[in-house]
Amino acid sequence: MRQASTILRFATNSPSLTDITSEVADWLESTSITEGLLTLLCRHTSASLLITENASPAVRRDLLRWLDGVAPRQGGYEHNDEGPDDMPAHLRSALTGVNLTLPVAAGRMMLGTWQGISLVEHRDAPHRREVACHVIGA
Amino acid sequence: MRQASTILRFATNSPSLTDITSEVADWLESTSITEGLLTLLCRHTSASLLITENASPAVRRDLLRWLDGVAPRQGGYEHNDEGPDDMPAHLRSALTGVNLTLPVAAGRMMLGTWQGISLVEHRDAPHRREVACHVIGA
Amino acid sequence: MRQASTILRFATNSPSLTDITSEVADWLESTSITEGLLTLLCRHTSASLLITENASPAVRRDLLRWLDGVAPRQGGYEHNDEGPDDMPAHLRSALTGVNLTLPVAAGRMMLGTWQGISLVEHRDAPHRREVACHVIGA
Repeated sequence: MRQASTILRFATNSPSLTDITSEVADWLESTSITEGLLTLLCRHTSASLLITENASPAVRRDLLRWLDGVAPRQGGYEHNDEGPDDMPAHLRSALTGVNLTLPVAAGRMMLGTWQGISLVEHRDAPHRREVACHVIGA
Repeated sequence: MRQASTILRFATNSPSLTDITSEVADWLESTSITEGLLTLLCRHTSASLLITENASPAVRRDLLRWLDGVAPRQGGYEHNDEGPDDMPAHLRSALTGVNLTLPVAAGRMMLGTWQGISLVEHRDAPHRREVACHVIGA
Repeated sequence: MRQASTILRFATNSPSLTDITSEVADWLESTSITEGLLTLLCRHTSASLLITENASPAVRRDLLRWLDGVAPRQGGYEHNDEGPDDMPAHLRSALTGVNLTLPVAAGRMMLGTWQGISLVEHRDAPHRREVACHVIGA
């Protein structure tokens, strides 16, 4: 039994979903751990991680529009230090969550056929985002 | 230290919560790992996993009605390939999440007295759902 | 490779966010596990765990007001056994989630600079809350 960890970095641009499944899978493969447990942590409070449908761009657009409705920009927020996209970004991050833990078998994450891992950017401006990755197993 | 994994399968029928706590506990017991970490991953994008109150059917009905309000069927969604319950199912799955990780002690999941694990079906039609299970420990 | 676990207890009072990052970090340090995986489980159905911005009280107030809007007290709920704050507490707990899993490196949780771990109380009355903690690693 052993473990490995790294930080993967991604550039984002405006509210969007970035599919990071292949980058995570590549790192997992590099560790040569084929049976175990993989954990991802988005190290930010205005971006998040989400497992969702990976095939349809329309699903991603609907998801962003829905987040815009549930945690709207015009919310009369007290916290407004960094502009009108600041507090809704924290709310959308809380709603979708920043960490994921996935079983690994035969060298692959046990995702379903239609599941992909997305890094969700909730701010308007381009950002560099960090995802801490850890795997334990054999 | 060792690990074990499996896929549990459940039949669902219309939007509903299925309590899967005992099936998961039975599998955990079969592994003979008594101290460790248990991870569950629902391998779908229109079903999810939720830890919630396990005693009251009224709580489950209120929860489903609430999801119906927060991610409504009539949402003017762009993605509509599989009918009006398609996109709201993805949203409700994103909202509630598809994975759980639980400490195990003395052979049992460390759930609180009133906590149960539910598989939440968000589609109208009957489905076969898979939950990937992994445990690591001693 | 080894593991450790405990239950941390916190007193809460009315809907609020309690920053528990330092208590968790202190326990982690006491285990002497410096590389590994830390898991937290809130053992309740009307309180939850959230990674969010740890610096601004205004963010915490906005978050509580937002939860109050998304899962309102006046929701016409069927389940009302323990008063009007009962069912919305279950919904807010489901929305924010009760478990977190975090990579550990160099003896510290791999949280980002602005991230803190909050125990979120959703009930009106004071409560004693339990958080089950588990770490595996070396």
